[in-house]
Amino acid sequence: MGDEIFLKWSWFLEWLTPGRATLKHVKRVIFQGRSRFQSVAVVEVEDEGKVLVLDGKTQSSESDEFIYHEALVHPAMLLHGSPEKVLILGGGEGATLREVLKYRSVKRAVMVDIDDLVVEIARKYLPEWHQGSFDDPRASLVIDDAWNFVAEGRERGFDVVISDLVDPLEAGPATRLYSLEYYRMVKDVMSSDGVFVTQAVSISHLARYHAIIKNTLSRVFKHVASYGVYVPSFDSMWGFVLASDSRDPQVLASRDEFESRVAKLIDPKTLKFLDYMALLHIFSIPKTYKEKIDEVEEYATLDNQVFLPA
Amino acid sequence: MGDEIFLKWSWFLEWLTPGRATLKHVKRVIFQGRSRFQSVAVVEVEDEGKVLVLDGKTQSSESDEFIYHEALVHPAMLLHGSPEKVLILGGGEGATLREVLKYRSVKRAVMVDIDDLVVEIARKYLPEWHQGSFDDPRASLVIDDAWNFVAEGRERGFDVVISDLVDPLEAGPATRLYSLEYYRMVKDVMSSDGVFVTQAVSISHLARYHAIIKNTLSRVFKHVASYGVYVPSFDSMWGFVLASDSRDPQVLASRDEFESRVAKLIDPKTLKFLDYMALLHIFSIPKTYKEKIDEVEEYATLDNQVFLPA
Amino acid sequence: MGDEIFLKWSWFLEWLTPGRATLKHVKRVIFQGRSRFQSVAVVEVEDEGKVLVLDGKTQSSESDEFIYHEALVHPAMLLHGSPEKVLILGGGEGATLREVLKYRSVKRAVMVDIDDLVVEIARKYLPEWHQGSFDDPRASLVIDDAWNFVAEGRERGFDVVISDLVDPLEAGPATRLYSLEYYRMVKDVMSSDGVFVTQAVSISHLARYHAIIKNTLSRVFKHVASYGVYVPSFDSMWGFVLASDSRDPQVLASRDEFESRVAKLIDPKTLKFLDYMALLHIFSIPKTYKEKIDEVEEYATLDNQVFLPA
Amino acid sequence: MGDEIFLKWSWFLEWLTPGRATLKHVKRVIFQGRSRFQSVAVVEVEDEGKVLVLDGKTQSSESDEFIYHEALVHPAMLLHGSPEKVLILGGGEGATLREVLKYRSVKRAVMVDIDDLVVEIARKYLPEWHQGSFDDPRASLVIDDAWNFVAEGRERGFDVVISDLVDPLEAGPATRLYSLEYYRMVKDVMSSDGVFVTQAVSISHLARYHAIIKNTLSRVFKHVASYGVYVPSFDSMWGFVLASDSRDPQVLASRDEFESRVAKLIDPKTLKFLDYMALLHIFSIPKTYKEKIDEVEEYATLDNQVFLPA
Repeated sequence: MGDEIFLKWSWFLEWLTPGRATLKHVKRVIFQGRSRFQSVAVVEVEDEGKVLVLDGKTQSSESDEFIYHEALVHPAMLLHGSPEKVLILGGGEGATLREVLKYRSVKRAVMVDIDDLVVEIARKYLPEWHQGSFDDPRASLVIDDAWNFVAEGRERGFDVVISDLVDPLEAGPATRLYSLEYYRMVKDVMSSDGVFVTQAVSISHLARYHAIIKNTLSRVFKHVASYGVYVPSFDSMWGFVLASDSRDPQVLASRDEFESRVAKLIDPKTLKFLDYMALLHIFSIPKTYKEKIDEVEEYATLDNQVFLPA
Repeated sequence: MGDEIFLKWSWFLEWLTPGRATLKHVKRVIFQGRSRFQSVAVVEVEDEGKVLVLDGKTQSSESDEFIYHEALVHPAMLLHGSPEKVLILGGGEGATLREVLKYRSVKRAVMVDIDDLVVEIARKYLPEWHQGSFDDPRASLVIDDAWNFVAEGRERGFDVVISDLVDPLEAGPATRLYSLEYYRMVKDVMSSDGVFVTQAVSISHLARYHAIIKNTLSRVFKHVASYGVYVPSFDSMWGFVLASDSRDPQVLASRDEFESRVAKLIDPKTLKFLDYMALLHIFSIPKTYKEKIDEVEEYATLDNQVFLPA
Repeated sequence: MGDEIFLKWSWFLEWLTPGRATLKHVKRVIFQGRSRFQSVAVVEVEDEGKVLVLDGKTQSSESDEFIYHEALVHPAMLLHGSPEKVLILGGGEGATLREVLKYRSVKRAVMVDIDDLVVEIARKYLPEWHQGSFDDPRASLVIDDAWNFVAEGRERGFDVVISDLVDPLEAGPATRLYSLEYYRMVKDVMSSDGVFVTQAVSISHLARYHAIIKNTLSRVFKHVASYGVYVPSFDSMWGFVLASDSRDPQVLASRDEFESRVAKLIDPKTLKFLDYMALLHIFSIPKTYKEKIDEVEEYATLDNQVFLPA
Repeated sequence: MGDEIFLKWSWFLEWLTPGRATLKHVKRVIFQGRSRFQSVAVVEVEDEGKVLVLDGKTQSSESDEFIYHEALVHPAMLLHGSPEKVLILGGGEGATLREVLKYRSVKRAVMVDIDDLVVEIARKYLPEWHQGSFDDPRASLVIDDAWNFVAEGRERGFDVVISDLVDPLEAGPATRLYSLEYYRMVKDVMSSDGVFVTQAVSISHLARYHAIIKNTLSRVFKHVASYGVYVPSFDSMWGFVLASDSRDPQVLASRDEFESRVAKLIDPKTLKFLDYMALLHIFSIPKTYKEKIDEVEEYATLDNQVFLPA
């Protein structure tokens, strides 16, 4: 079997830190191009199926995107309890939108993505991700910088806001969307009982950066909770931060409460990853990571932005 | 920061599958040699500290060996409830022994490892792992093939048997130690209420092979349970299988039962990873993996051995 | 500049030996597919331009294909002195044909390639290589196994035969085309003063295999000469073997003889690499390689084929 | 054979350009440390034997160091014709010194290297390189920055000066030793009929930087000649520049002149690479490289230093 290795010439080299990278065999390059904001590729990777790659980083892969997207969306939606208006910042693949639209209570889901090429490529090459969500009558797509949409307060009263953005890289389009000033503006477009959630980089490998996101949100919202899940295609335990002024995430720890909210809001058969055990799983961050997060005191502002090391 | 990459010349290239590998920057090679059975190295890796590498595979790394070793040892020990005699097969680093010796009830711990070089190297270069366990008066070290020790029935009546062996590679020293015939012999040296646990390869990347180990054990023991934990240095959710005729792992799902057993047997402050939440975490295998495991029907015998693909 | 490295996700990993590989950044995958015989790809590589890749091995790259093709074709053509009928075995890119057609004396050039997909891809994506040669009225393309064409003696009396085949890999389509029996058949389709030349794997890294090709030809032809040239995209000094019964390669060592033959046969302005100094350059194999070649006594037959180690 | 690849865990990743690297399997790390100036390692590489690595770049390897060192030293020594006093700048391995001491005419060879750790490591681990040269009574070792030695004019009247320094990297110790100002000072310590030679980076991959070195020397010396040789462990055609006011390199093109100088000065049996054919070989730079060199007009001064891209 090893001899085959010599025939595998095309590899995706993804850096997790400057001292660690993953090599994945690329079976096929489906699309490769460059938008105004970033390089964009869709490749087929051995063991993973199709993968969306932005600026050299795996955004999601066919084999496990549901782990990431279900973990991102459902805790916030269930914590709110009856979300009607939802705002998605980023999320170009359409899979975050797909998860949001599973909720019977949702009447309107606005998705704001800066990069029309990513959305176009997703619509064309990633149907397994969006599953037609862009055509749902409740969905509304805005191509713009999330900063502008939020700063101008074009629409308000969102019950849940989901930040599904690329990582805060120095030259990347999303860095200021992890700042204190931005989170304050986001809060202004939320309903008073609103819930915010954001992807928050790797807990296992970039705990300091995860902590900075958490700390920044702690200065804006009363309740803030970190959670994480191992996503194989990311080669790490991926982090998320949930934030709200009025809703305490602890409420979901009750199995009865969790089950009754699910029953009311969504068809559980449409969930491949999230159930009560999975919820316990993702919120019980091992002590070793928890300690690394807790020792960080930094937070990010526009004048003191924080970039990932790569 | 990226410029530093060009100065990092020494890399550990570890294959997880023939289509996927991890590159880790090696800061220092502390030991590199070859025993009668395998290549043996101790390296210092960026972000991970010291790492023991056998035949090119990470066995455990300083930064997270406690995750692996606590997950391997404690569920079996706690499930038994009052382990006095424990047998460790493999486990050359001495960290499995270290965890076993934390139990007040343990009177005798026999460790059988085939490779005296690995044990010697561990004693010399991996004190963070064994922490002096080899010198504990309750510990007894046997250098021999685990097959011989078990087949000859040199000692019987073990309450817990822990299999901490290298993966079943075609040319590796441990392959027949994953067979039906072997597990039957192991059962013969256990007490009637004994508990067996084995490392059981990657659940996230090699679910078929994990399932084969589980299926093989199911033909020997009444109760069998898979569990898994993300170990960063392994780049995957690592699997384990717990097996017993008389002890049902479900009993640990009760928080009261778990806490009372811990309190009776061990000082919880010595555990860095395992507590009740972690237990729930590792036993709640996401549905996606569970389905892949459940669809496999193969099992391994001496005449029909199963080797990992690399 | 180093930070860009993290954005370069697509890499060509090419193995030269099982202990050595080259990583080349792929800017664009232009074509990727599989013919009946091999995997076929055209990629754009940083610093090299377009590259044709068959079964994971660089066949030729835009930046230096002329070095390889001029070195392959011209010594044989000039040694013959007035080539009219030329046979090309392999050579799917059309660049060997391009070099052959530069000779005023050439009246007919037959190219036999087994893989119509390679030829089709070359015609479409590699115009810099063939430069329209396939449409030259003197050129004739046959899609068949070179073995069949030669064994059946479909056409005879070739003044020069040029073997531009893939390496002799165990599962590859060309391995038996490096055997004693094959070379005897090739001689049967040559004119009595004919000259044969073949690409003959890396001298710097696979001297043993180069020597086997040379030794095999030595059993069929009276005059045999090795030569080599560094081709950057191959990461090695590439070897060739020139063979003839009646023409002694030494004759080209005379500058006057060389220059007068060039003047008679070809427009020297069309040559980017080969002139008299280059000829001296490629035929003066450093002693260290020469000794490694000379110590090998093996040769290849159908019953005792020799495969490259990868 | 391919299965072995999975057991090869330790690799040397060497960047030639930011878009190209070589992976070499490391069989053993013999020494790894850090001096005041650079990281220093001696490793045993598959197919190459021992390799000296400074700041992540191969300096020379056991399998082919003689190609590099003979090509560096002999053209300059033979061009001079009767070198008595020789200055070596850098050359920590001692192999340049070894080649210089082969000349019967040499009475004194001064070697100035900034890094005593490199020299100490070479003496201890690289006996195949220096072969005892450091103990030759004609040799004198100075541990200092070559800049200081030359600027202070501590010793003058050198017949041949050989610059065997690390590449001009931005943070490296040798960058100002490629400047116009430095070359002028070097000329001041040379005899009036002196000859200077320097290693001058890769011609095949970094022709612009090679040309800058050549152009800089052209502003100081009357006769300047580029030459190059493929060094397998460098993965490129390595460049050198020869410079002199009174000696025209063309004189060596005469075979009689070359042979008579060799016969007078050195025992040719001690040369493994350089003979007349090799001399023609290395001075006949293929047109394609020559054109890239000739089109560059830049040169380097202290105020306008030029660094390699990595």
